Amino acid sequence: MSDPTPRIVDRGHVGQIDASLVPRYSGIATFGRLSQIELLPESNAIDIAVVGIPFDSGVTFRPGARFGPAHVREASRLLRQYNPAQQVYPFGELQVVDAGDIAVNPFSISEAVLEIERGALELLDRAPRLLTIGGDHTISLPLLRALCKKHGAPITVIHFDAHLDTFGPYFGADITHGTPFRLASEEGLIDRESSMHLGIRGPLYGAENLTDDAALGFQIITSGHFDSEGMSGILERVRARVGDRPVYVSIDIDVLDPAFAPGTGTPEAGGITSRELLTIIRGLAGLRIVGCDIVEVAPAYDHAQITGIAAAHVMYDLLSLMAGSKF
Amino acid sequence: MSDPTPRIVDRGHVGQIDASLVPRYSGIATFGRLSQIELLPESNAIDIAVVGIPFDSGVTFRPGARFGPAHVREASRLLRQYNPAQQVYPFGELQVVDAGDIAVNPFSISEAVLEIERGALELLDRAPRLLTIGGDHTISLPLLRALCKKHGAPITVIHFDAHLDTFGPYFGADITHGTPFRLASEEGLIDRESSMHLGIRGPLYGAENLTDDAALGFQIITSGHFDSEGMSGILERVRARVGDRPVYVSIDIDVLDPAFAPGTGTPEAGGITSRELLTIIRGLAGLRIVGCDIVEVAPAYDHAQITGIAAAHVMYDLLSLMAGSKF
Amino acid sequence: MSDPTPRIVDRGHVGQIDASLVPRYSGIATFGRLSQIELLPESNAIDIAVVGIPFDSGVTFRPGARFGPAHVREASRLLRQYNPAQQVYPFGELQVVDAGDIAVNPFSISEAVLEIERGALELLDRAPRLLTIGGDHTISLPLLRALCKKHGAPITVIHFDAHLDTFGPYFGADITHGTPFRLASEEGLIDRESSMHLGIRGPLYGAENLTDDAALGFQIITSGHFDSEGMSGILERVRARVGDRPVYVSIDIDVLDPAFAPGTGTPEAGGITSRELLTIIRGLAGLRIVGCDIVEVAPAYDHAQITGIAAAHVMYDLLSLMAGSKF
Amino acid sequence: MSDPTPRIVDRGHVGQIDASLVPRYSGIATFGRLSQIELLPESNAIDIAVVGIPFDSGVTFRPGARFGPAHVREASRLLRQYNPAQQVYPFGELQVVDAGDIAVNPFSISEAVLEIERGALELLDRAPRLLTIGGDHTISLPLLRALCKKHGAPITVIHFDAHLDTFGPYFGADITHGTPFRLASEEGLIDRESSMHLGIRGPLYGAENLTDDAALGFQIITSGHFDSEGMSGILERVRARVGDRPVYVSIDIDVLDPAFAPGTGTPEAGGITSRELLTIIRGLAGLRIVGCDIVEVAPAYDHAQITGIAAAHVMYDLLSLMAGSKF
Amino acid sequence: MSDPTPRIVDRGHVGQIDASLVPRYSGIATFGRLSQIELLPESNAIDIAVVGIPFDSGVTFRPGARFGPAHVREASRLLRQYNPAQQVYPFGELQVVDAGDIAVNPFSISEAVLEIERGALELLDRAPRLLTIGGDHTISLPLLRALCKKHGAPITVIHFDAHLDTFGPYFGADITHGTPFRLASEEGLIDRESSMHLGIRGPLYGAENLTDDAALGFQIITSGHFDSEGMSGILERVRARVGDRPVYVSIDIDVLDPAFAPGTGTPEAGGITSRELLTIIRGLAGLRIVGCDIVEVAPAYDHAQITGIAAAHVMYDLLSLMAGSKF
Amino acid sequence: MSDPTPRIVDRGHVGQIDASLVPRYSGIATFGRLSQIELLPESNAIDIAVVGIPFDSGVTFRPGARFGPAHVREASRLLRQYNPAQQVYPFGELQVVDAGDIAVNPFSISEAVLEIERGALELLDRAPRLLTIGGDHTISLPLLRALCKKHGAPITVIHFDAHLDTFGPYFGADITHGTPFRLASEEGLIDRESSMHLGIRGPLYGAENLTDDAALGFQIITSGHFDSEGMSGILERVRARVGDRPVYVSIDIDVLDPAFAPGTGTPEAGGITSRELLTIIRGLAGLRIVGCDIVEVAPAYDHAQITGIAAAHVMYDLLSLMAGSKF
Repeated sequence: MSDPTPRIVDRGHVGQIDASLVPRYSGIATFGRLSQIELLPESNAIDIAVVGIPFDSGVTFRPGARFGPAHVREASRLLRQYNPAQQVYPFGELQVVDAGDIAVNPFSISEAVLEIERGALELLDRAPRLLTIGGDHTISLPLLRALCKKHGAPITVIHFDAHLDTFGPYFGADITHGTPFRLASEEGLIDRESSMHLGIRGPLYGAENLTDDAALGFQIITSGHFDSEGMSGILERVRARVGDRPVYVSIDIDVLDPAFAPGTGTPEAGGITSRELLTIIRGLAGLRIVGCDIVEVAPAYDHAQITGIAAAHVMYDLLSLMAGSKF
Repeated sequence: MSDPTPRIVDRGHVGQIDASLVPRYSGIATFGRLSQIELLPESNAIDIAVVGIPFDSGVTFRPGARFGPAHVREASRLLRQYNPAQQVYPFGELQVVDAGDIAVNPFSISEAVLEIERGALELLDRAPRLLTIGGDHTISLPLLRALCKKHGAPITVIHFDAHLDTFGPYFGADITHGTPFRLASEEGLIDRESSMHLGIRGPLYGAENLTDDAALGFQIITSGHFDSEGMSGILERVRARVGDRPVYVSIDIDVLDPAFAPGTGTPEAGGITSRELLTIIRGLAGLRIVGCDIVEVAPAYDHAQITGIAAAHVMYDLLSLMAGSKF
Repeated sequence: MSDPTPRIVDRGHVGQIDASLVPRYSGIATFGRLSQIELLPESNAIDIAVVGIPFDSGVTFRPGARFGPAHVREASRLLRQYNPAQQVYPFGELQVVDAGDIAVNPFSISEAVLEIERGALELLDRAPRLLTIGGDHTISLPLLRALCKKHGAPITVIHFDAHLDTFGPYFGADITHGTPFRLASEEGLIDRESSMHLGIRGPLYGAENLTDDAALGFQIITSGHFDSEGMSGILERVRARVGDRPVYVSIDIDVLDPAFAPGTGTPEAGGITSRELLTIIRGLAGLRIVGCDIVEVAPAYDHAQITGIAAAHVMYDLLSLMAGSKF
Repeated sequence: MSDPTPRIVDRGHVGQIDASLVPRYSGIATFGRLSQIELLPESNAIDIAVVGIPFDSGVTFRPGARFGPAHVREASRLLRQYNPAQQVYPFGELQVVDAGDIAVNPFSISEAVLEIERGALELLDRAPRLLTIGGDHTISLPLLRALCKKHGAPITVIHFDAHLDTFGPYFGADITHGTPFRLASEEGLIDRESSMHLGIRGPLYGAENLTDDAALGFQIITSGHFDSEGMSGILERVRARVGDRPVYVSIDIDVLDPAFAPGTGTPEAGGITSRELLTIIRGLAGLRIVGCDIVEVAPAYDHAQITGIAAAHVMYDLLSLMAGSKF
Repeated sequence: MSDPTPRIVDRGHVGQIDASLVPRYSGIATFGRLSQIELLPESNAIDIAVVGIPFDSGVTFRPGARFGPAHVREASRLLRQYNPAQQVYPFGELQVVDAGDIAVNPFSISEAVLEIERGALELLDRAPRLLTIGGDHTISLPLLRALCKKHGAPITVIHFDAHLDTFGPYFGADITHGTPFRLASEEGLIDRESSMHLGIRGPLYGAENLTDDAALGFQIITSGHFDSEGMSGILERVRARVGDRPVYVSIDIDVLDPAFAPGTGTPEAGGITSRELLTIIRGLAGLRIVGCDIVEVAPAYDHAQITGIAAAHVMYDLLSLMAGSKF
Repeated sequence: MSDPTPRIVDRGHVGQIDASLVPRYSGIATFGRLSQIELLPESNAIDIAVVGIPFDSGVTFRPGARFGPAHVREASRLLRQYNPAQQVYPFGELQVVDAGDIAVNPFSISEAVLEIERGALELLDRAPRLLTIGGDHTISLPLLRALCKKHGAPITVIHFDAHLDTFGPYFGADITHGTPFRLASEEGLIDRESSMHLGIRGPLYGAENLTDDAALGFQIITSGHFDSEGMSGILERVRARVGDRPVYVSIDIDVLDPAFAPGTGTPEAGGITSRELLTIIRGLAGLRIVGCDIVEVAPAYDHAQITGIAAAHVMYDLLSLMAGSKF
């Protein structure tokens, strides 16, 4: 029987189920086989809560990201304790838990956005930092609202995506998965001096999308820049622009090429590779990461969990990054 | 945040997460969105524990059933409270919980079999009846051993399968997914006057397989009998043979035709349909069910969860059956 | 070049592209390779318009039916002129066209429902009968509203589905894919003396769902009745209840077992087969069919188009039925 | 090393690789793990040669059946020695071998047809009966030509298919997968008093297809007749019509519903089940089977080998039938 | 109703359906949601016709590219108006239409080749430039014949492919998907001073393939050169060799690695990425593009449309290139 | 008929089936369509035997590599005679055969390991060098044991993998797919001065894994080094370290990113590409290769054979490498 489940305890932190006693494919799926929040001893203060937001009513093309959190949890079973790329034990440095999902209304974007903000604020009372699994990109807006209420505005956003997500209303809806960063910027949540998009590519509605985007405070690194500037060039640019401001990292899985992330809603050819994405994330070491999300994993289009695995590994490196960053 | 998760409480039993407040695709996957055993109030006595056994080292062809429990849990999200086919609220009549998985050794069948028996016995201390998700069919042997230790031998087995599973050793291994019912019969665990196979079909090693099987105490209803005898004829035959003996129901998902259950390890064409299987199960109402298992769901071969959904629905009707049966 | 595309003209009706000159896999996909409404000569009066409604924001579980119309069109390329099962040339008896899709708002159910009603009414000005491809089941409500405005209320509904779809509000939304027939009945659109569900199965919220449903005017034929009553028994029951009232046929593809229709949003094991569904539809010959829809085809979960092909063939027999029915 | 591979020898016939020594998933794929013709001792006379014809240039819709033989071989690994449904050891009663594939020209139907006839005749010099795996249905014409040259014309054809395959030329090609039985009948190869189609369904070009077909000597049992006449009724009809004439059995896998055989080129909803097909084949016991083919398995559309497994099991019962039939 | 469909008109050109009014997943699938040729106002002169040629009878391995045009149309729904990579509005600069498919004989390569040439010539009377979606690579021969009849020979060919396609006859067929550029060169259609292959890799029949190919006028850039020369090195080489000659760009999707284009007929590991392909295409800016094709998309092997999306995006950049090029 | 199969004979070596006479999709699947060992004339001395080992009972996560050999054989049908990347005819330079599979016990790792060693030794009596297809990575241990018995220890290992495979016992099993290189090193089979891992990435159990690994004699090149050192830098490092020692190359297909090799058991994001892997392999030209294996291809997770094709092409370049290397 799985009770009591043997767990790895490192520096007092309750970590993963011990894979030398329980095979990785065994047991109810939590992120990284970490403890559920309900089962963590009261005495353990939480450093980071991993939380899902199964909401995809803000999409404009393929829906399905509502199944993203469950899929990424299943795909995270292979994660182990030590990250040699960052030389850190993320679950030893920090108390990380799986806080389950924030349940939201699938029929009303406006209500869902309120529920997400409320849920995030409640969770932030227990956990100073959140790593959120979407869900579609709509969720970044209420997450930024909650974060700014908690920590103050504005926050620098480092945004990995094929798309700008600073577009205008669509079918009368102001809040969709194409608008979170426009709205967040207009609301003063985003630092306009330092925010960036990485991995941008694909057709736009018009050239004005680029000028609008710049006015909202973003600098763009396209997927083409990964060839022309190289990863060290990009990292230099990012670090110079961001400095030591507090940073929110938002990763739309479609920043990866569809070969690396078929399971997503608005795929665009010509993307970056999972190796490039991991290298950039690792290169952010030392920045002040105050929160992260990874969104738009749509499992119905995935194959052999490759999208889910990419997301889980990116999350692992984000956690490692946070373990090593000032806060 | 999902804490405290709103749950349906019916006659004092802690049931499913309330789907009117938490969408079915939301939250960590437990069977039927039932409570995990660790989160059930101590005061609630358990009637049935649903438990997974992610073990597939006893297979002779396609492996992969080790991922069966996780897959069936995901595929059980749509289950609701009331079963009109049996006119019962299974989670209201009984306290059903998800007890997680029994973790076992993937490298040693003999050790795994001991661990399963031990795990089942421990669980039977808390829950009088178990509904187990395999894993491959090897697991039925230690489950029957535990059950007989707890409740006394022999037990009548109603076994749904394409295969007899009363075969001899294979590659020197006495205990595999092809042998559980031969060994159980030889060990005196199975009632030889009343046990039955249903849905049998496909090529055998030799005609002696049939005489051996009969000597071990089984009567065979082939998939062809579903046409020639009709379901009422089959049910009559089963009920007459079983009477009011205590019954263990063991369902190999490959009893279904591969069209209905592609996600399995040794598929045979010409099987029964999920409707036929459900009808037979419902027709067992009133029998004294002391335990059940459903095995051989191999997700890597499934498509759109159709095998997982069939398994989850069969489990739901097994639970409903147990809710209505003497024990 | 495909212009002018050679077409079969039968009794003055512009029919399918001539497959002896243009292979079936060639050309832009319209339903059954029929003429688009924009390319039909003005002089040809339309009898039936096939129209898609790519809307799935009313779903409670797996989304994706917004891609249903495109998928069914692709899967309808193999349809030929003569239906031997009904001894009719549906495209020769009637002028059938593909009217494209009614474009609706994905972010507001209430607005979408108005747009669907408006679009259907506009189309009904040109085509007395519609065969609609969903989209999720939400669309049946505005379609019935439009139909009743045009032809008068109430209308008898013959509803094929695993689910009742007479449920109550969900997450504050009164109109979802689980509620169309409750609302339609409450609005007086549905004839309470004669309407029926066929193929019902699976768990419910509670026993009261059945009494509520009966009060709304429906009689239920479960999937189990397909065995116990036989298809002739069922047809007798349907014909006796319906009589010569005007009938709307609404088919949720999940009435089929997941083996036959994996590509859908809320699959339930134990369903009927495509042969059974076709037999029942053909058995409705002579009824006064005033309109039909087929909904809940979610292509992301389909395999080798089997769901799409089932839907296309069902639509073909519905068209054949309409070709032979009084109106 | 696999040399010498341990084989089961029964009544002097070299049979399957011994699965108690070599796991079924091991070794180069031959049909049923039987001996390749090149490795059979010269002294062993061959009774039946299983041969593939990887040709699909005669198709009118989805191509891909050229990969059928390889796919069915892989899917036949689970076959065992004894067929309880027919109480026969097909590989013990007869010397069955895998004769590999007849290599044919993919760019010229007329040349391919000559090559198939020539290859079949050469093989018939060594093996009196052939069980052929297509490839598309075009191959039945040259196979019947060869058979009639060898054994005399006409031959009764029992043809399982969704389609009549007695259609006229298409795009100027007289020989395609839609025409073999028209041409064979016109050439006098087919007995017009006794031939039959079973499982027919789906739309036709016109009502004249049926009268043309009847004139060519076929009687039709539709898939609908499986409900209205029952399997015993159908078998009675077949046996009465066929008598003790020599019979060629030709099975297009699309006779099965797409749920049971997604991997095929021109799927039609409403088909029969694999259990029904096996029951009918078994019911042909005692007929004088002179040869068989199974065609139109298109692996690119298959899932989890369900189509391949259905084909392999049907072939196994055909072999069992031949083992028990006069010749 | 979708009539009249709201369209974007830019500089008098009828462009895409307006996605702010009609969701991208809505409506009958044309390439890029552009106008069908039949629905374009007579007054609008066509600049580029996108046309499909669903022909795959010239393949030597996996067939299925006959479904390529339909698949790419479905996968092109996400394209938007402005291409920031080339800073151009391709549908604003030029009048682009979807001309449907050229229907051709699937049973005779020689006839099909005549039909393609004839169809292309007819279309060239209305549209000076064609962007063709295959179909297999056979189609490039008749397309070059038509182009040279219209614009004069020879034309420089920039050919992206894993394979040389300058091979000899196969199974007696001179014209197959392995021979178009040998035949075109022998017929004097190809400029032997300036033509090139890019992305070549994989095993050959013999070393003579390379000398033969050189004699036919091609220079080879292998996929390995993408590492050793870099993309700027390659572009320099291409531009130097091509100069301002009229150029035909032919892209076999298998130039991409199978990870990026699984849906193709003769995949070879070690290919280029979609980002590399797009970068090279964009680097051809300013060349005199007289026509393009993209071939060998075989949807039955695709997953989540990744091959189709890559093809659609490549076509979008080809259109953008043509919008900016002299003609 | 396929007998006698036309084969290409080059310098007396019996090579591939002649694809100009037998299409590549035709015939029973052997690796590269080479001769089976049983059919090779006695007079032909074997240089390299390709042999499968369908064993996956040593895996710790997803099983299924037991189907690897059959899958890679099917995926190797497109290989042709001449390798332009290495300018060699591998099947002309050497006599290569397909030796089938070594059949091993699926239920006992220890017995299987003995069987593999015994089988390899027997095969080495006929063929001086083996190219083995797994199966899981467990098989490398007995293969190294056999090789060292034959040729003497120690041997330099160049190991491509995401994982170190020098881990400790797991669930009491000393020999698993995670331990072969630790055990081989401890047994003195591996040269500790010169062995290397390439492509390493992903989380570890702890930092001590790295020091343990170094102590066992390995130097690590991570997937990140592919960016930072470049392929020429890596090759320089490898060649300098290895020198002219005898080398065993062991390739776990999961060294490739999951986008390139979804069909494997323990996928890790951030891997290398198939182009990078081929380039490195080709860069080993001139090294003294004494044997190779490629392992962990798990077909149930593959799509469109992309993993199988990558493995087959890698094997082809390994064969080419051996053709050009001293031995």
